[in-house]
Amino acid sequence: MNMKILDTICSISTAQGVGAIAIIRVSGKEAFEISRKLLKEQEMFINCAPNFVKRFDIYEEKTVIDQAVVVKFVAPNSYTGEDVVEISCHGSKYIQQKILELLLQNGARLAKPGEFTMRAFLNGKLDLPQAEAIADLIDSQSEVAHKLAINQLKGNFSQRIKNLRSQFVELAALLELELDFSEENVEFADRNQLLQLLKTLKEEVIKITESFKLGNVLKKGIPVAIIGKPNVGKSTLLNGLLKDDRAIVSHIPGTTRDTVEDNFNINGINFRFIDTAGIRLTDDEIEMFGIERTFKAIDNAEIILYMIDVANTSVDEFEKELLFLENEIDFIHKKLIIVANKIDELNELPKYFTEWEDYDIIFISAKRNVNIDDIRELLTQHIDQKKITDNTLLTNARHYDIMLKIGEEIDKIEQGFAQKLTTDLIVIYINSILSLLGEITGEITTDEILDNVFGRFCIGK
Amino acid sequence: MNMKILDTICSISTAQGVGAIAIIRVSGKEAFEISRKLLKEQEMFINCAPNFVKRFDIYEEKTVIDQAVVVKFVAPNSYTGEDVVEISCHGSKYIQQKILELLLQNGARLAKPGEFTMRAFLNGKLDLPQAEAIADLIDSQSEVAHKLAINQLKGNFSQRIKNLRSQFVELAALLELELDFSEENVEFADRNQLLQLLKTLKEEVIKITESFKLGNVLKKGIPVAIIGKPNVGKSTLLNGLLKDDRAIVSHIPGTTRDTVEDNFNINGINFRFIDTAGIRLTDDEIEMFGIERTFKAIDNAEIILYMIDVANTSVDEFEKELLFLENEIDFIHKKLIIVANKIDELNELPKYFTEWEDYDIIFISAKRNVNIDDIRELLTQHIDQKKITDNTLLTNARHYDIMLKIGEEIDKIEQGFAQKLTTDLIVIYINSILSLLGEITGEITTDEILDNVFGRFCIGK
Repeated sequence: MNMKILDTICSISTAQGVGAIAIIRVSGKEAFEISRKLLKEQEMFINCAPNFVKRFDIYEEKTVIDQAVVVKFVAPNSYTGEDVVEISCHGSKYIQQKILELLLQNGARLAKPGEFTMRAFLNGKLDLPQAEAIADLIDSQSEVAHKLAINQLKGNFSQRIKNLRSQFVELAALLELELDFSEENVEFADRNQLLQLLKTLKEEVIKITESFKLGNVLKKGIPVAIIGKPNVGKSTLLNGLLKDDRAIVSHIPGTTRDTVEDNFNINGINFRFIDTAGIRLTDDEIEMFGIERTFKAIDNAEIILYMIDVANTSVDEFEKELLFLENEIDFIHKKLIIVANKIDELNELPKYFTEWEDYDIIFISAKRNVNIDDIRELLTQHIDQKKITDNTLLTNARHYDIMLKIGEEIDKIEQGFAQKLTTDLIVIYINSILSLLGEITGEITTDEILDNVFGRFCIGK
Repeated sequence: MNMKILDTICSISTAQGVGAIAIIRVSGKEAFEISRKLLKEQEMFINCAPNFVKRFDIYEEKTVIDQAVVVKFVAPNSYTGEDVVEISCHGSKYIQQKILELLLQNGARLAKPGEFTMRAFLNGKLDLPQAEAIADLIDSQSEVAHKLAINQLKGNFSQRIKNLRSQFVELAALLELELDFSEENVEFADRNQLLQLLKTLKEEVIKITESFKLGNVLKKGIPVAIIGKPNVGKSTLLNGLLKDDRAIVSHIPGTTRDTVEDNFNINGINFRFIDTAGIRLTDDEIEMFGIERTFKAIDNAEIILYMIDVANTSVDEFEKELLFLENEIDFIHKKLIIVANKIDELNELPKYFTEWEDYDIIFISAKRNVNIDDIRELLTQHIDQKKITDNTLLTNARHYDIMLKIGEEIDKIEQGFAQKLTTDLIVIYINSILSLLGEITGEITTDEILDNVFGRFCIGK
């Protein structure tokens, strides 16, 4: 048991600001004792059944602060695994602060971000990836990001790591066996079996590690850059894509414009526009992409929508630009979609496009909203739908860093075998892997790990 | 029963934005039936005891949306008096919107602002002033504003209005009695009694009406203007007053600077600074208060802090300025406090101030934070502390308008008596008063009144 969880913490757990209702949470050994002191009907509170919602007057001396609804949860049957009290009060800032003050005066202390969830972890209610999933869940802004978090919360990812761990334990056991007989100078016939197991494990580690690329962009939104000459229709297209953003329920208050301005959902996947304000293709080839900052922006993009104006540009110009782009941008790791705009100003499509059959090219009119859906479709096609259904994708940067380290340790083991290192040295590498896996699941924790994990939570969770 | 309350409404009831927890409320005949469809464990929900908190998985088809805590309240034992379900979910925008969408898909409709409280009123859980007090309670930013709302919520104001009403009923009864015998052409000897009762009632109506002046500023904050020449130390003083604002618990997140910038609490009373950015006393007397806009600001102030620089100004100048101020500003209805700044630059106070004994004058050093507390004390002295303890102060503009109308009707009755109007005409005025009082308490309502009252609520209440 951690020293940190001896005291009783409290916090406003609902979003900041004024609302109809706010919830204040108290957790810890003294949760009932401290909360009781705020209530008029103290006897009633003491006798109240757990999990039972009841109305109480919140009192400061003889002044009523609020008529609130209070519920107590008895350890270990609570979110944190400790005694917990939840106070639903009227959502004025004054009342919220007043109740919090009274709790502080009576001996609670203000919870740090994520501290409730940290206690849930320390009390064995969740493992570490599940706790981390809670932060992701609260942050999630798209269907897919939400799904990834839910899967992790359900323990799917933890299970995969645990399986991996038990196989490394098996590997270690086989080696230890060898070690036990080492004085007899026996080399076991099943070293092949060992190598085979190691190979399987390595493949699994690589698979998990590589899934971070997809998991991370799905969580954070897939970065897209729209580039092209001035007046080619970039902002009209962007507005068109944003306007039809059906994933955002716009009639619900609080969906402010600024949260959707640079993000939109297609089929539940979040795409995130990178600011490429400075990008312009000039007629002067040398200056075509003169600005370094914009190249950096392109560098962060996974998909590039390269817009051209088919009505007012010659084929020569296009080909010059395309050649330039292909020299400057690494299209092996980025997807290029050519968006040929202003078809409404043409009677027929220029023939030369048939020669561009190797490219993904979409003919649109941003102004008249023609074929915008084709762009949506192509954007989502970029994501391997089959891989999304993998419910153990790696999405967490902390896990990713650890997986990379595990990969390095595996390399060392392989080299060790090749160099005929003694078994006891190889066992050290395996133990290191077991520790690393334990850091993911939280079987091994340090204050540093805890601070890192729970520091990114919001207050009140 | 109102047509409007046949359907089932839902809404996010916590503050907008991302938080650890959010609450979604459902109220109406179908509340249980609609909410049930979102849950995995439907049977468990049906059998769950009222007021009992339980964890459920929220499902959309086969996808888990969230692990939420759900409680049902059975009519009439709920906030609205209807069947109510409260869903506490993780506070991501995605989850909040998704659950709301699912409720809408299953037949609920989005609640209008204040609609939950309107239903509570229509179902007889609250009278109209109590419902209005809920909106005030949520809006309240100071101890006193909060106390006024709590008193009104407890029904103190309603009781005063009801008492008033029953006395008018008595008056009407006495007159009706006269009316019954009117054919016998009798004028009752107790007309004096009638006049006496009317006089008492008039006094009570005036008292209630006049309490609005105090009630309103206490609710909204007492408007204060700081005026004076440039460089006299106005912003240093303002910062000094704001900095020591002990009523704002600054270590609680969400107490953003912008909410305290122009407001501060002293002894639980909210003072509100009016922007007098344009006000400057120039040396040229004619231009001294040249700008019309600033006079308007002064006009809205209840207290004027007139700052002077005792170290660098001659007594002649002060007297010229004071004379000018007293000519231009109505100090019968505004309090003037002279703040003599920069005493730190003097060895002794100029003698002529002894001649200014009729004024409230405070000697300070804004820079060195000397005597700032004296200003605080003088500001709070301005408020009659005894009157604050009156727990039936009129604070609501709607009630105030109605009270003014009642005052007019009383005048008509008085004139009626003087002009020896027939009793049946006077009864008409009394009935009008009874209607007006009914509009305050909500015994008489129209859609217009309801829209007016509940339109100012926040969503979800």
